[in-house]
Amino acid sequence: VLGRAGISFRCQCLQTSSHFIRPVHFADIQMIPAGPHCINLEIIVKLKSGQKVCLNPRANWVKMIIERLLNKQKD
Amino acid sequence: VLGRAGISFRCQCLQTSSHFIRPVHFADIQMIPAGPHCINLEIIVKLKSGQKVCLNPRANWVKMIIERLLNKQKD
Repeated sequence: VLGRAGISFRCQCLQTSSHFIRPVHFADIQMIPAGPHCINLEIIVKLKSGQKVCLNPRANWVKMIIERLLNKQKD
Repeated sequence: VLGRAGISFRCQCLQTSSHFIRPVHFADIQMIPAGPHCINLEIIVKLKSGQKVCLNPRANWVKMIIERLLNKQKD
């Protein structure tokens, strides 16, 4: 359920996957911080195929990939 | 320009902001990895107001907030 301006009013992910997906397939990564609408941080990756996958935010490879993306930026 | 399945074909951000925004205002954070469509990693935050802001992926506070979100997840 997306409310005004696409702000979610409940958790978007019914379940999450911990299976590794090669980042080369990622079109984008959406992080939805926990809040009144949902107690979990949600990480939803959109693949280049258009498919969306809810990732387990506790999975180490998910954290590693996001940190690597951030740190690849030359200062 | 969003192509099939909402996959971007060029950079989404014409400019980015390094000004601190309190994460309490974030509805979600979208990370678009660099690729053939755009040489930059792009980080677009959607605020609860519905407004979208392109953040500077090199800004330390941006990296800190994303890492804090990830590490807040109890293992």
